[in-house]
Amino acid sequence: MVRVTIYNEFIHEKTNTNVKAVYPNGLHEVLKEALCDEEITVRTITFDNIQNLTKELLDSTDVLLWWGHCKHADVPDETAVLVQNAVLSGMGAIFLHSAHHSKPFKLLMGTPCSLSWREDGDREYLWACDPSHPIAEGVDRYIKLEHEETYSEPFSIPEPDKLIFIGNYEGGEVIRAGCCYRRGYGKIFYFQPGHETYPIYYHPMIIRVIKNAIHWTYNPYRSDIDCPHIKRIEE
Amino acid sequence: MVRVTIYNEFIHEKTNTNVKAVYPNGLHEVLKEALCDEEITVRTITFDNIQNLTKELLDSTDVLLWWGHCKHADVPDETAVLVQNAVLSGMGAIFLHSAHHSKPFKLLMGTPCSLSWREDGDREYLWACDPSHPIAEGVDRYIKLEHEETYSEPFSIPEPDKLIFIGNYEGGEVIRAGCCYRRGYGKIFYFQPGHETYPIYYHPMIIRVIKNAIHWTYNPYRSDIDCPHIKRIEE
Amino acid sequence: MVRVTIYNEFIHEKTNTNVKAVYPNGLHEVLKEALCDEEITVRTITFDNIQNLTKELLDSTDVLLWWGHCKHADVPDETAVLVQNAVLSGMGAIFLHSAHHSKPFKLLMGTPCSLSWREDGDREYLWACDPSHPIAEGVDRYIKLEHEETYSEPFSIPEPDKLIFIGNYEGGEVIRAGCCYRRGYGKIFYFQPGHETYPIYYHPMIIRVIKNAIHWTYNPYRSDIDCPHIKRIEE
Amino acid sequence: MVRVTIYNEFIHEKTNTNVKAVYPNGLHEVLKEALCDEEITVRTITFDNIQNLTKELLDSTDVLLWWGHCKHADVPDETAVLVQNAVLSGMGAIFLHSAHHSKPFKLLMGTPCSLSWREDGDREYLWACDPSHPIAEGVDRYIKLEHEETYSEPFSIPEPDKLIFIGNYEGGEVIRAGCCYRRGYGKIFYFQPGHETYPIYYHPMIIRVIKNAIHWTYNPYRSDIDCPHIKRIEE
Repeated sequence: MVRVTIYNEFIHEKTNTNVKAVYPNGLHEVLKEALCDEEITVRTITFDNIQNLTKELLDSTDVLLWWGHCKHADVPDETAVLVQNAVLSGMGAIFLHSAHHSKPFKLLMGTPCSLSWREDGDREYLWACDPSHPIAEGVDRYIKLEHEETYSEPFSIPEPDKLIFIGNYEGGEVIRAGCCYRRGYGKIFYFQPGHETYPIYYHPMIIRVIKNAIHWTYNPYRSDIDCPHIKRIEE
Repeated sequence: MVRVTIYNEFIHEKTNTNVKAVYPNGLHEVLKEALCDEEITVRTITFDNIQNLTKELLDSTDVLLWWGHCKHADVPDETAVLVQNAVLSGMGAIFLHSAHHSKPFKLLMGTPCSLSWREDGDREYLWACDPSHPIAEGVDRYIKLEHEETYSEPFSIPEPDKLIFIGNYEGGEVIRAGCCYRRGYGKIFYFQPGHETYPIYYHPMIIRVIKNAIHWTYNPYRSDIDCPHIKRIEE
Repeated sequence: MVRVTIYNEFIHEKTNTNVKAVYPNGLHEVLKEALCDEEITVRTITFDNIQNLTKELLDSTDVLLWWGHCKHADVPDETAVLVQNAVLSGMGAIFLHSAHHSKPFKLLMGTPCSLSWREDGDREYLWACDPSHPIAEGVDRYIKLEHEETYSEPFSIPEPDKLIFIGNYEGGEVIRAGCCYRRGYGKIFYFQPGHETYPIYYHPMIIRVIKNAIHWTYNPYRSDIDCPHIKRIEE
Repeated sequence: MVRVTIYNEFIHEKTNTNVKAVYPNGLHEVLKEALCDEEITVRTITFDNIQNLTKELLDSTDVLLWWGHCKHADVPDETAVLVQNAVLSGMGAIFLHSAHHSKPFKLLMGTPCSLSWREDGDREYLWACDPSHPIAEGVDRYIKLEHEETYSEPFSIPEPDKLIFIGNYEGGEVIRAGCCYRRGYGKIFYFQPGHETYPIYYHPMIIRVIKNAIHWTYNPYRSDIDCPHIKRIEE
């Protein structure tokens, strides 16, 4: 079993009528229901109880999903460092949509991870530029999202180890929408879809990709990556 | 001075009225006139005199531009290997548009370099996903092409060392449109724009990018990359 | 079950007394015995029956291991292209030791894959520079080989997607000894150890790494990677 | 002119007799004298006046060199962030030797950047694994250092965009000794040589490499990399 923990800040769903209409119990509950199966167990955590996002929780998490937006700045620095260290030790991490600007993602990337955006409900096509990658398994040439917030290049991330998806918006923009990284012992996947006002996480192919990414980021090994002082191998 | 050689097969311009209307003397002549300046000299070669594409010509070429389409299969294998070896020894190479399927590009990549395509005259936006790269110098957020042949992912190339441009077509497709590689001592840039029925190479920003790419791929050093049998450094 | 095919040219073992003493039945037989387990089945093929290295054989091969040296030039070009295409379609491939200069590896890399060498029986330490990678699973900081042929940088390969091992020779040289690539749908691993005059393939940790690499390069999916002409998604 | 600023913490040279014997005025002074030429101007700064490492100083610095060791933890977090942001905006940065553990380097990498080490005065050979790269220009196959502190893999850095040098130590270790990265608009080079008890920075080829790296990391453009809210391109 892969033990997944979903962090969703769960603010917009309580304060914005349009979001509440799409995700009445929070998008984490929709993700949880969609992701749970015979291979994946899911726990959830929200901003209101972020004090429970402890080293102990991370130690028993194989893959962490992160969705955040308006509370990025209020996530304690110590929590962000805990997440960064867990990834470096081997925990998988999937950063969803506006989590490109979350503290742990920026710590792991070392760059601002900024992009441009607009909210016009554009149609998006998500193209699998590497259909051979396990994260794209089961995806046809593209996934169509009827409406999505538009994210635009330039996206100030390090060159991905592997680019899996590119998004095309009807207004003309593009975004590197599925990006793989290895950092320390951990594997990281950034996945752009998921604006809170559209039912993105009800889309079966989006769920399929996230499930694929859970299996891809899962590393059964954890390790401290500090290196010791050594002695000469042979005298 | 950077010594550029442009190979253009120069067939469509003679056999297709629409192409002839855009490039009456061949697209190589338009490129030559646009690229020549106080830092760049240009020679041209076409399929009809491809026997002149010799090792001697390549030895005196700093950067080779390659445009081909209907004559890919008729380029002699020996010529393709000469180009591959020149790049490996340090010659820069820029493959334009349908040259993604040229023999020398495929030899250097090791993959089919296939993509999907359609000809509907779509509008294309070329986005600079790394505006800090010298190849993107002077480019605003994007370059707009009123009409272009549509190229679509998946594009079966090795992961680029650096991805510079991504194309968005109005029909919904995307393509990795500006891709950097190093192979041996040589630098390679693939650049997607340039369908023969549209006046792409009259666009000042397309010329700007190609000029930038000439300077980026130019390596003043040439070297044989065979490695010798060696002796133990120290007894 | 992962269906492995080992190609070993099997010449040195018949013509050189020292090699015969180490591998009396050929190094492919030692590899076969060491690799077979409840998850891996192994077939072998040698230069003398290379005509059996057909598309049918490759279609039923999940991962191909390749060891060659003095017969590189005599492998038919068509066979090398068959192997290249099988990898591009999803077959895993592991190139061992002097196979860095084999035709299929050079076709897949697009570069000369040259390196310098000497035969002084140096001690080699193989360092795992990424201990988190599944190919390095079970390896301590390094693997010690009492004697090995010395391979030296510069090694004219494309920058590996991921570098797993670096070799240190007592004479002072280094080599990128474990290199991962993705090409098309296939995964490729180059692994330097394996000179025919030393009992390298009897070393349990070398076998461990090759087994790890078999599982890593294994892609259960095969696909034609040609791309079709397309129609506009939406009118 | 490329405007270089050297930060050297300048502690060991004042507190350790052996170090003082090698670098009586600090290693920054030796570097400054060696690097200044008709294309490079050099300013220096030390830990004792680190309050002068301001945004203004960085704004007028094209390339920053960083040497630190025992005072890593005492560099203010704000200073480290200033350096990180300057790099992201386009300043070049060269991190020397024990600066692998400096705050700005770790912020830019997002990983612990740990390695193992021992001080036995081993001989090191630094191999140019990509002799075609401008940073390796003028380097023969290797640079020999009679004595150097030993650094050992695993080195917990992100996969380098380009690996230029690998070090071989007589005790058997290896280290990725010359590593290139792009982050935001800035270029970064990590270069391992430079233990304070050996006269490494008097070695003409080490200086040659650092000069090459200064020219390679120098980006004449600076830019804010925040991305704005955008409007739809076309209605």
